[in-house]
Amino acid sequence: MLVGLGSSFDVASRGEVDLCLENGARADNISFGNTIKKQSDIAYAYSKGVRLYAFDSEAELEKLAESAPGSRVFCRILMTCDGAEWPLSRKFGCEIEMAKDLLVKARELGMDPYGVSFHVGSQQTDLNQWDIAVGKAAMLFTALNEAGIDLKMMNLGGGFPAKYRTDIPAVERYADAVMHAMTNHFGNALPAMIIEPGRSLVGDAGVLEAEVVLISKKSYDEDVRWVYLDIGKFGGLAETMDEAIKYRIQTSVTGRKPAPSCWAVPTCIPPKSGRERPVTKCREPLRGVTKCAFWPTAPTPPCIRG
Amino acid sequence: MLVGLGSSFDVASRGEVDLCLENGARADNISFGNTIKKQSDIAYAYSKGVRLYAFDSEAELEKLAESAPGSRVFCRILMTCDGAEWPLSRKFGCEIEMAKDLLVKARELGMDPYGVSFHVGSQQTDLNQWDIAVGKAAMLFTALNEAGIDLKMMNLGGGFPAKYRTDIPAVERYADAVMHAMTNHFGNALPAMIIEPGRSLVGDAGVLEAEVVLISKKSYDEDVRWVYLDIGKFGGLAETMDEAIKYRIQTSVTGRKPAPSCWAVPTCIPPKSGRERPVTKCREPLRGVTKCAFWPTAPTPPCIRG
Repeated sequence: MLVGLGSSFDVASRGEVDLCLENGARADNISFGNTIKKQSDIAYAYSKGVRLYAFDSEAELEKLAESAPGSRVFCRILMTCDGAEWPLSRKFGCEIEMAKDLLVKARELGMDPYGVSFHVGSQQTDLNQWDIAVGKAAMLFTALNEAGIDLKMMNLGGGFPAKYRTDIPAVERYADAVMHAMTNHFGNALPAMIIEPGRSLVGDAGVLEAEVVLISKKSYDEDVRWVYLDIGKFGGLAETMDEAIKYRIQTSVTGRKPAPSCWAVPTCIPPKSGRERPVTKCREPLRGVTKCAFWPTAPTPPCIRG
Repeated sequence: MLVGLGSSFDVASRGEVDLCLENGARADNISFGNTIKKQSDIAYAYSKGVRLYAFDSEAELEKLAESAPGSRVFCRILMTCDGAEWPLSRKFGCEIEMAKDLLVKARELGMDPYGVSFHVGSQQTDLNQWDIAVGKAAMLFTALNEAGIDLKMMNLGGGFPAKYRTDIPAVERYADAVMHAMTNHFGNALPAMIIEPGRSLVGDAGVLEAEVVLISKKSYDEDVRWVYLDIGKFGGLAETMDEAIKYRIQTSVTGRKPAPSCWAVPTCIPPKSGRERPVTKCREPLRGVTKCAFWPTAPTPPCIRG
């Protein structure tokens, strides 16, 4: 469907390259946007016709020059990700000064220094972050122009949110914020733009169904109920780690006053297949629960009372 | 092999019941030691002949009375897990006062109140913890004896460590500590004992092999190298979360001075099958690295300099 709508695709692994091609995407509409790729995967993507690659280090650039010669490359720069529910830390991207040198070096290595990418952090709720990020990237365009390199593309990353527990600005407001940032810093000389709005496209499309296996108390002194589910940190709730993403919770129980509870997911019980899972009907929100999962490594369980 | 050696088995899920039975274990040598079980899984284990079940709450006890009538039951009590590299928090077990009432109630429900279980935390390095725990459990034996219930079994849990980065006391010292704790509190009237030494039995049996995909720096100002592996938090390194378990790391590179580094595991790259994975020879320990994995949700990456 996305192919039919004219989408391009950003991939992070060899498997995703295959997935896009198998579903009708053209190789020249694929961007290999992961900055950490195996040499063998670069060669594989190149053999399939992919000609656009991300990097954020000299070592990765050299791998690209060897296995994807002459391709368009773009450098990912670091962002602070303030305001994001799931910040991406310093794991991807390099400082802007290094990015400039690396894009110059890309030309020396026979590559086509094509653009810049960044990511403002997943589930970003501060619209102003795009203006900050685009401003930083625009400085790189200017610096490289002075070095005789004319960048042509800006990958604005993801960050557009899905609706979890709180309301989020409409997608139009995000689009306005991004376009305002671009015209603010580039005027009418807009570069080509790539965005990666995965979460905002599909985040609301799914429902995770779970069975309550047990509700118990640990002692007579405590007020907190422990609610044990049959879904796990490794079986659907990965994004709740460190309380990064808080899902909406609905149960089939109505009419009773919500009590303080600590939601727990057993680690010894593997996720069951859909076929075996009993249906827990979801009708009413269970208010008073502000936390939906924790993990037994935590020295102090993050019980939150409603 | 374990069946041949006369082992009994503690299971935590329906799948493990099947695994034990398929490998020749007898149902009356199986203890269902997970305190949070689905009603359907209790009924399944009962239908297969399992007659020993753990619980730590009234609700679970009632489930057992319904689906595993007349079975032996043991109550798990809470421990603080001081000294453990992987403490188990309050997720499993109840306070001792509640345990007493629940075991009395078990008899009322027609069950056989059989014993007590606890767990001092995984990778426990403080041998004294067993004396503290057994003392607490012995108090429960005494209290129930006064109520006319003669408990017969003590499940001492796991906690016996595997060797990771530091030397650990020999298994004989653990055995001595456990037996000393038992005779200290029970004299010659020792109850039957169950232990669950899984980690210490098999923890040293495996080697996790990984390819270094990229080594990079983020800026000119920082000293730290970022080392990206092709194994992930969800592909073998789950126990390193929150730095709970620190693995020994060996590389094929010798003779070079170790530099400060931050080890990272990409989340977008799924673990590859053994067939495809290039062999990274492990010969020499890479000293100076005290941390082997982190996860991009961390606002501050836990880089540790050697």
